[in-house]
Amino acid sequence: MTQNTTKKLNLNSDLGESFGAWVMAGDAAMLGIVNSANVACGYHAGDPLVMTQTVERAKKNGVSIGAHPSFPDLQGFGRRRMDIPAPELEAMLIYQIGALDACARAQGSKVTHVKPHGALSNIASADRKVADAVARAVHRLDPSLILLAPAASQMALAGKEIGLKIVEEIFADRAYLDDGNLVPRSQPGAMIHGAEASLTHVLRMVEESALISINGKRIPVNPQSICVHGDNAEAVAVAQAIRNGLTKAGYTLVTIPELAA
Amino acid sequence: MTQNTTKKLNLNSDLGESFGAWVMAGDAAMLGIVNSANVACGYHAGDPLVMTQTVERAKKNGVSIGAHPSFPDLQGFGRRRMDIPAPELEAMLIYQIGALDACARAQGSKVTHVKPHGALSNIASADRKVADAVARAVHRLDPSLILLAPAASQMALAGKEIGLKIVEEIFADRAYLDDGNLVPRSQPGAMIHGAEASLTHVLRMVEESALISINGKRIPVNPQSICVHGDNAEAVAVAQAIRNGLTKAGYTLVTIPELAA
Amino acid sequence: MTQNTTKKLNLNSDLGESFGAWVMAGDAAMLGIVNSANVACGYHAGDPLVMTQTVERAKKNGVSIGAHPSFPDLQGFGRRRMDIPAPELEAMLIYQIGALDACARAQGSKVTHVKPHGALSNIASADRKVADAVARAVHRLDPSLILLAPAASQMALAGKEIGLKIVEEIFADRAYLDDGNLVPRSQPGAMIHGAEASLTHVLRMVEESALISINGKRIPVNPQSICVHGDNAEAVAVAQAIRNGLTKAGYTLVTIPELAA
Amino acid sequence: MTQNTTKKLNLNSDLGESFGAWVMAGDAAMLGIVNSANVACGYHAGDPLVMTQTVERAKKNGVSIGAHPSFPDLQGFGRRRMDIPAPELEAMLIYQIGALDACARAQGSKVTHVKPHGALSNIASADRKVADAVARAVHRLDPSLILLAPAASQMALAGKEIGLKIVEEIFADRAYLDDGNLVPRSQPGAMIHGAEASLTHVLRMVEESALISINGKRIPVNPQSICVHGDNAEAVAVAQAIRNGLTKAGYTLVTIPELAA
Repeated sequence: MTQNTTKKLNLNSDLGESFGAWVMAGDAAMLGIVNSANVACGYHAGDPLVMTQTVERAKKNGVSIGAHPSFPDLQGFGRRRMDIPAPELEAMLIYQIGALDACARAQGSKVTHVKPHGALSNIASADRKVADAVARAVHRLDPSLILLAPAASQMALAGKEIGLKIVEEIFADRAYLDDGNLVPRSQPGAMIHGAEASLTHVLRMVEESALISINGKRIPVNPQSICVHGDNAEAVAVAQAIRNGLTKAGYTLVTIPELAA
Repeated sequence: MTQNTTKKLNLNSDLGESFGAWVMAGDAAMLGIVNSANVACGYHAGDPLVMTQTVERAKKNGVSIGAHPSFPDLQGFGRRRMDIPAPELEAMLIYQIGALDACARAQGSKVTHVKPHGALSNIASADRKVADAVARAVHRLDPSLILLAPAASQMALAGKEIGLKIVEEIFADRAYLDDGNLVPRSQPGAMIHGAEASLTHVLRMVEESALISINGKRIPVNPQSICVHGDNAEAVAVAQAIRNGLTKAGYTLVTIPELAA
Repeated sequence: MTQNTTKKLNLNSDLGESFGAWVMAGDAAMLGIVNSANVACGYHAGDPLVMTQTVERAKKNGVSIGAHPSFPDLQGFGRRRMDIPAPELEAMLIYQIGALDACARAQGSKVTHVKPHGALSNIASADRKVADAVARAVHRLDPSLILLAPAASQMALAGKEIGLKIVEEIFADRAYLDDGNLVPRSQPGAMIHGAEASLTHVLRMVEESALISINGKRIPVNPQSICVHGDNAEAVAVAQAIRNGLTKAGYTLVTIPELAA
Repeated sequence: MTQNTTKKLNLNSDLGESFGAWVMAGDAAMLGIVNSANVACGYHAGDPLVMTQTVERAKKNGVSIGAHPSFPDLQGFGRRRMDIPAPELEAMLIYQIGALDACARAQGSKVTHVKPHGALSNIASADRKVADAVARAVHRLDPSLILLAPAASQMALAGKEIGLKIVEEIFADRAYLDDGNLVPRSQPGAMIHGAEASLTHVLRMVEESALISINGKRIPVNPQSICVHGDNAEAVAVAQAIRNGLTKAGYTLVTIPELAA
């Protein structure tokens, strides 16, 4: 239970998801709340200009930068399952992480973590073969990159096995099944609403070092990072409340590389 | 006339221009002939898997790797002029170079030069503002990258001014106008046909350190790299003949970083 | 001055410009204000689902449907100039119009007019060769399609010459140069602000059957359709005010096919 | 056994699968062999210019035109499974068929059948929900369109049920499992090699009005169309041999609309 001793935690959010003329709002507010940004790399959202601007703003806010690679599916926002053979998937991940890292390096910054997006993340969390492809791609590109993976996922296991530093994340606004997977959005109780309920949910999991399922089952994990969203004004308010609540509870909020240090 | 003293020259070719199920042939043959490959980065051709395989084969052949970035135009193969504001163009170049560099680094290799493709190259050769954007992007990403630019072009000037190492290239199969530009393909005499004529053309320019125009005018340059094509069996034979002819004439053929060393 | 006798006018707006997960707002409000919608066809915005939904809503509101084809440039929202040879441009236009028409026909509706978008419209308004390609494409696909073209443009001339029905449009919020082109947005006075000024501008041009330039010069045209925008709350309010003002001034607002009938 | 009485059969092939600068060969030869072309619509291959040229050549050869729509996946050539909700899939199919039909109509021709491509075809052959979405899209766009579906597939059943004319196809070079599905390429015996074996395979199924599995099992079907390939010189020779063999056996080779007439 390392993170309780050090009392360090991280808040992360998916940012830079505008594309061309289309704006996905919330980035400005969230960059003042989170410690680490998962930045879209052009496959589900983001374009080189959006990526450049997002990295610039993250740097100004002291927010660490992660790559948020996806299946190649702009129209579907990376939310559609696609069957891509492992060698091609690995090449796609390396392409995206490298593209974002170059945007960052051109501004004196760099990518320090990787968090897969959408359907890719869902599949890699449950299917060990896809999880292994993700871990292999990250490790081959740069073994010092940190993999930000859902707590108790196949992706976290695959990352550990290959020798990557892993940070396990939990979701502030989602309930868990007994097997550690998220309750599907189509089922009642999937979403946790409101700042107070979200903060209670998060604090309990952090303090008990466990996922706590909708039925009260506990799965031991090491939840060092909390994923928050900024899609609308209410989400931003919840994220801010979680930040305030964690600080009040004595946690120090740090970037992902600082967690892993 | 440094290159005459050292007698070092380079042969480069555009490779990795397949895409998905579509094959652009010639790579296998050309990798045994040239010293440096300009590898498509996904904007006009190439995809992550093609890029990965091209880098792998280049490495096996001792061929150095350059990024061959383009306007975003797969359907037009990057041959259509597009008006893209400088900040977005710079971001696009950094994105592409970074993506290829990651493919290379994942295999223990790296990108050592940059050569813009198609319409982007044509515009950046003639328009100083676009040339400056290209030079700035390369320099911001990594000032040790070498810019492979047409001899006597605005791109070569822009690269020198910003402090990049420049290698000037000449074309084995193309005639020049008095102003140093290529004779447009639509005009008679634009193309130089056959191995013998191409080799004579190249040797004369290299030995006189000058572009020699279709009217016999000389423009002093430092032609260290010769661009050859591999689109068809005849082109491959011409490339091989140029290689043999240059070797016979006493030149040592080296990679682009070895030229600049 | 046909349109004064009949006192029929049309309000048109560019709609259906969302894409995948990204929403371009204003459609719901504008469908209650305008008579005709220019619907994006997937090249600069829109996707099959957005197109289907837009056509469905237009039908419910009695709004006639036009195709709003573009250069192939989602990332640039069709605002970047591209050099595309005429035969390919014509094929692209036919492709886009046909795709939208199929979405419409599947719902018992149909495309009745065509209005080029963005950079394509700007070029086709000034360059007669591109204007001819646009007119030829529309005419080859279906000579009964109406071309909605800027008043006094090369596109309007090209359409007339090939035998298409033409409806000339004016812009409610833009000032004109003495040659009939729009004052570029970069120059002072380019935009006309506020409902009152826009309505006055529109009414004067309609009543005098002329473009009236920023210097007071008059160019005789037949302005039957007024382009309004819905990008933000203020634009929607201006559009509504123009609708109200035209109705009050005795004009009947009709769809584009009703104008041309 | 209608087709034996009339002795009419059809040969179809997937054509127009070039894209931009990349050529997928074989079209010229195949247009002299087959009666009907399944033309790519831009989602897995084809672009507006390729589509226009393919339609033009088909018309000159008296070859009828079908749409060959796909999942949106150029890089994967439409061969990757994607999960796309039915309403969006239907909209995508209507978009593609309409785009090709417009290319055809602009040349005085038209689309008369639809045959889904690649992964979409595989899924729609086995999964009734996807088959229903395909049938619904085709029917909504134009109930007179003919659906060319694998014999004994869910797609054929879905098409019949919604009221479409169906033509069932068999594959000249592929062996069948006992359940009517193709033997997967990864298994021994999947491919039938050579002109003689292919012709025997086809003639037997046509004469017995049945799929005949690799184990000799017979599934009654009405095989009116034979799919042949033209990817390489050998495939073209096999296609020509099948054409010659069927003619010699007394069959009249006709277009798909002529079959259904």
